[in-house]
Amino acid sequence: MIESRYAKSFASDNHAGVHPAVMEAITAANTGDAPAYGDDEWTAALDDRIRAEFGAHASGFVVLNGTGANMISLSMMLTRRYEAIICPETAHIATHETGASERVLGAKLITVPAPDGKLTPGDVTSRLDVRGNISYVQPKVVSISEVTELGTCYTPDEIASLAQAAHDNDMLLHVDGARLANAAAYLGCSLRALTTDAGVDVVSFGGSKNGGLLGEAVITLRPELAEAAPYLRRQTLQLGSKMRYISAQLTTLLTDELWLRNAGHANAMARRLAAAVSDLPGLDIQYPVESNAVFAALPLEAITALQSRFLFHVWEGSVVRWMTSFNTSPDDVDTFARAIHDTLKP
Amino acid sequence: MIESRYAKSFASDNHAGVHPAVMEAITAANTGDAPAYGDDEWTAALDDRIRAEFGAHASGFVVLNGTGANMISLSMMLTRRYEAIICPETAHIATHETGASERVLGAKLITVPAPDGKLTPGDVTSRLDVRGNISYVQPKVVSISEVTELGTCYTPDEIASLAQAAHDNDMLLHVDGARLANAAAYLGCSLRALTTDAGVDVVSFGGSKNGGLLGEAVITLRPELAEAAPYLRRQTLQLGSKMRYISAQLTTLLTDELWLRNAGHANAMARRLAAAVSDLPGLDIQYPVESNAVFAALPLEAITALQSRFLFHVWEGSVVRWMTSFNTSPDDVDTFARAIHDTLKP
Amino acid sequence: MIESRYAKSFASDNHAGVHPAVMEAITAANTGDAPAYGDDEWTAALDDRIRAEFGAHASGFVVLNGTGANMISLSMMLTRRYEAIICPETAHIATHETGASERVLGAKLITVPAPDGKLTPGDVTSRLDVRGNISYVQPKVVSISEVTELGTCYTPDEIASLAQAAHDNDMLLHVDGARLANAAAYLGCSLRALTTDAGVDVVSFGGSKNGGLLGEAVITLRPELAEAAPYLRRQTLQLGSKMRYISAQLTTLLTDELWLRNAGHANAMARRLAAAVSDLPGLDIQYPVESNAVFAALPLEAITALQSRFLFHVWEGSVVRWMTSFNTSPDDVDTFARAIHDTLKP
Amino acid sequence: MIESRYAKSFASDNHAGVHPAVMEAITAANTGDAPAYGDDEWTAALDDRIRAEFGAHASGFVVLNGTGANMISLSMMLTRRYEAIICPETAHIATHETGASERVLGAKLITVPAPDGKLTPGDVTSRLDVRGNISYVQPKVVSISEVTELGTCYTPDEIASLAQAAHDNDMLLHVDGARLANAAAYLGCSLRALTTDAGVDVVSFGGSKNGGLLGEAVITLRPELAEAAPYLRRQTLQLGSKMRYISAQLTTLLTDELWLRNAGHANAMARRLAAAVSDLPGLDIQYPVESNAVFAALPLEAITALQSRFLFHVWEGSVVRWMTSFNTSPDDVDTFARAIHDTLKP
Repeated sequence: MIESRYAKSFASDNHAGVHPAVMEAITAANTGDAPAYGDDEWTAALDDRIRAEFGAHASGFVVLNGTGANMISLSMMLTRRYEAIICPETAHIATHETGASERVLGAKLITVPAPDGKLTPGDVTSRLDVRGNISYVQPKVVSISEVTELGTCYTPDEIASLAQAAHDNDMLLHVDGARLANAAAYLGCSLRALTTDAGVDVVSFGGSKNGGLLGEAVITLRPELAEAAPYLRRQTLQLGSKMRYISAQLTTLLTDELWLRNAGHANAMARRLAAAVSDLPGLDIQYPVESNAVFAALPLEAITALQSRFLFHVWEGSVVRWMTSFNTSPDDVDTFARAIHDTLKP
Repeated sequence: MIESRYAKSFASDNHAGVHPAVMEAITAANTGDAPAYGDDEWTAALDDRIRAEFGAHASGFVVLNGTGANMISLSMMLTRRYEAIICPETAHIATHETGASERVLGAKLITVPAPDGKLTPGDVTSRLDVRGNISYVQPKVVSISEVTELGTCYTPDEIASLAQAAHDNDMLLHVDGARLANAAAYLGCSLRALTTDAGVDVVSFGGSKNGGLLGEAVITLRPELAEAAPYLRRQTLQLGSKMRYISAQLTTLLTDELWLRNAGHANAMARRLAAAVSDLPGLDIQYPVESNAVFAALPLEAITALQSRFLFHVWEGSVVRWMTSFNTSPDDVDTFARAIHDTLKP
Repeated sequence: MIESRYAKSFASDNHAGVHPAVMEAITAANTGDAPAYGDDEWTAALDDRIRAEFGAHASGFVVLNGTGANMISLSMMLTRRYEAIICPETAHIATHETGASERVLGAKLITVPAPDGKLTPGDVTSRLDVRGNISYVQPKVVSISEVTELGTCYTPDEIASLAQAAHDNDMLLHVDGARLANAAAYLGCSLRALTTDAGVDVVSFGGSKNGGLLGEAVITLRPELAEAAPYLRRQTLQLGSKMRYISAQLTTLLTDELWLRNAGHANAMARRLAAAVSDLPGLDIQYPVESNAVFAALPLEAITALQSRFLFHVWEGSVVRWMTSFNTSPDDVDTFARAIHDTLKP
Repeated sequence: MIESRYAKSFASDNHAGVHPAVMEAITAANTGDAPAYGDDEWTAALDDRIRAEFGAHASGFVVLNGTGANMISLSMMLTRRYEAIICPETAHIATHETGASERVLGAKLITVPAPDGKLTPGDVTSRLDVRGNISYVQPKVVSISEVTELGTCYTPDEIASLAQAAHDNDMLLHVDGARLANAAAYLGCSLRALTTDAGVDVVSFGGSKNGGLLGEAVITLRPELAEAAPYLRRQTLQLGSKMRYISAQLTTLLTDELWLRNAGHANAMARRLAAAVSDLPGLDIQYPVESNAVFAALPLEAITALQSRFLFHVWEGSVVRWMTSFNTSPDDVDTFARAIHDTLKP
């Protein structure tokens, strides 16, 4: 039996295990044979839940990881090979996917500086002076992350403004929602308010960072985009054969608001951590804590000292990222906060 | 609670559920936090098992599905953009992956007619007259499936001859081993005898068709090829974040020869089925039953009648494919065989 | 001054030089400055000629070589990444372009055996049973060559039937017309009869093999496809900067039927050659001589003997391809035919 | 006969016609038949000239346009699909090639702000902290333009430092030399001093902007890179069939220093223009005039007034780019300068 050697990790919400209810759903799905590739009843049940949360016109496609969800989402929206994607400089697709957009899509990312990780309608429209210039790629998709990579959130109105700017200019809006649940929890709104109702066209909806084992969903909110999805999912290496075990996870998260409870708890733990350390001299919280991430600047020697006992990542220079999750306990936070206090005290 | 509405399926070994020992390993891995992306102890344990089975120079990389395993394997071996892959016309990469090779690799498949699904050294060398002709893609990889898509097996000697032919001509040999376990069980040899010892360069090693929930491994048998794998896996959408849950599955299959017991049982069930129906007038077994597949020709009306009660696929025309799995019972086979008898009797 | 060391070549119509009228047009275009990238008056004049020959809805796009013309034509027609191209096994795009379709388009070619190089509507419709099966690429384009790679020609009716079969099944028809002029000359019809009037959607129209120096045109016959062409041409490395010098060539070929005279002459020389040798014992003409190519089987030692004095290619095995061009003279043919006689006589 | 309707253009050096000696070489090459695809004596002669200019280990490959030269150069150097290119933000490959790098190479460009268009060794080394991080593309090529897109030049020492920085870090150095001749003319050095002797690995060597009709050369300075070039050239749509007519152009430019005289003259005309207008109030020269380009800021209404009479491009905002060429005369410059004076005077 392998035992985890680490204390509670603050490195990533994917260091957390699987929520017990999700694991139970997986084991419960292990009942006899079932058709593969999504022709099973667990996936049909998920389809129902997705329509319930995102609206009658929504279609969900189970995929295998977050980069896969993003690539299939974007692939559905890009039909001409010279079309490009406008996104913040900090976007996951631009920075952390080893050039998947360039290799798998063959598409250029038009990256926009965004100090708080958020794009504005002006950021979009100011990139459109290349329209019709054949030497330039032509913007077709705006891609934002909700929660952003810096832990901040767009309000529903901000997303609606971006959707409007996109649609007014013959573009589509994609949301990388690896942590969409955390945004909805922070904003106190439904998943639908942040997506369907705001005019979003396609969503990468995250499961694994919110207590799942493995699996995300691409959710199309424009029926005409859905037709291509099954082919693209197969071709782009994102079709799971025994899909019931993934669908069962997502259905569990989307049932009785488990997604909201998990995300709300993770968010509360991040706020608890930030509150406990924000007044410390030598420590500087970098962004509003609007989800389950705390970005803090602190002296390099303090970082080194803390990393000998706790798992977390340096984001850049002397800024670290501390993530909480559905299974971070108040005690975990308090222990960690105490260690930070001890490390920073003169 | 969703209950499966089908009787035992003979459509695919991925209609089967998850082996209890594998499911137990998954739930046992759900113990606290663990680093993501493979820096965990379950993956370290798998690495050990892979070296134990495939040799000290083997490196294993957990991936998410079979097409992903194939694409990453091939991507590791193709360094020039005009290099091509020689494979049988029936190869999974050529027929059932929605053009992933062409889209994701940008590579041409040089497909060779192979009535029994098997390539010969002569098939390879006879495609080399294009060498040095700049108007033609240049063969760099030979890709075979073991078990083949027609349920037949290469002997270790046959694989060794293909490896020799490849290496003699500055090419590499890839084995799509989605059902490698079934081949080893049929041939009564080790996994290593079919791969490392035969001179194979890279293997897609299947887990999901042999009782796993999800996950395969790319196994490199040439150390110099391994360096690229982590980048290609991340870029090509095949990196699982909570990898421990996949590694634990594969480790379980590779421990105490569970892989062999599962595959041996599935093979035995296919033989039992073939034996029970092979003498039936109007039914014609198509290929030697060397794994867990039975291909049979039978009248179209008999196919239709049987499909109303049992799940299985028509392969082509009036030929059907019946697959067994680790959880097919003798009773399942006998029930199905009886139904075939009843359907075909005059 | 370099002098050509060879006798008249029978290897390819691109061994021929440039027609004097074409060369004159090039030098005449060298008059002062002109806008680049097609915003010049020579290109405007070509646009007029293209509309005159192919119809008012035709749009022409000058490109740099034949593979470029094919790739841009196909790229315009393929909007989903899982769409595929049905073409004869002998198609230039399938055999002689070093995998450009796979690399540049990322598309699979569904190749169909075609003993005379020609596709039939039945060849197309019989490949459509994969429609809707997500494991298979989905046919979207039928691509034929007129003249075919074996020197044969489709009649306008045959092309119309293929266009019908394509359109009836939500596909488009592309014609690789590197030698379209030769087909029109053979069939005694207009370029338009073979393309626009037959329902063709996009044509790669050849210039270099018909007396040009360099340059082809992509001709779209569906206005809605034309919008993407300028971007794809720039992106796919086919935009010439000083375009006037290419446009002037194509305009010259399309003026006063120079294209027809050049092609008609080349065709006549091929027929003359075939007539002169077809009765020789030991020599076997392979296909109907319907353009400027003669395919003949003859003993290997005769091939070797002839190649020591004349440039021509072995097509496959003991079959050679002899090409004539606008500047092949009757004397050239007679000299070559005499040599063949001498070589083959007992 | 089409007559150019414009006065001398200051928009681009590719608005200029073809140098008379180059045109003469083209017409002289029109002598009988010759092998295609480079197996001709004109191309052999070019190979000699390239070795004479760039060194005995240099290999030249004729291609069709500048983007083609860049894509083939980069394709030769990138062997792993996750390798990336470091280049200035202003690089032609990053801005003006409609995403060819992303589509054709599938590679990410790591763009670096470079106010004068020039990269420094520090710009390169500071981008290497992603080395070994599998979530990031891995820098493999440094690509610079000589002359830069802003008309500035790297000294041989600056290029040597970049080559050193690249090689010290297991990378290669590519030079987009669309205007390499202008740089050598400005710096008073040989082509070799700027490339081979400075440690450059591959050069895109421009012909069309220096008096050619069409055609560039990819020049490899590392023999081991040359092997792939012919395949990549064919596959990537850059192989010209009647190559003699392109080779003859480049040979002419490389003979008796015609390249240098053309470039030197163009540079002198740019300096003459800059000198004539640099003191004008309201006009601000933006960069050192080190080649055949003058970038100047001037009031928008002056730009509009001038553009009604002269062809030139707005670069960005109120900054215009004026280009001179081999056939810009002192009178052309003086006429233009006078018009600028008249437009700007109060």
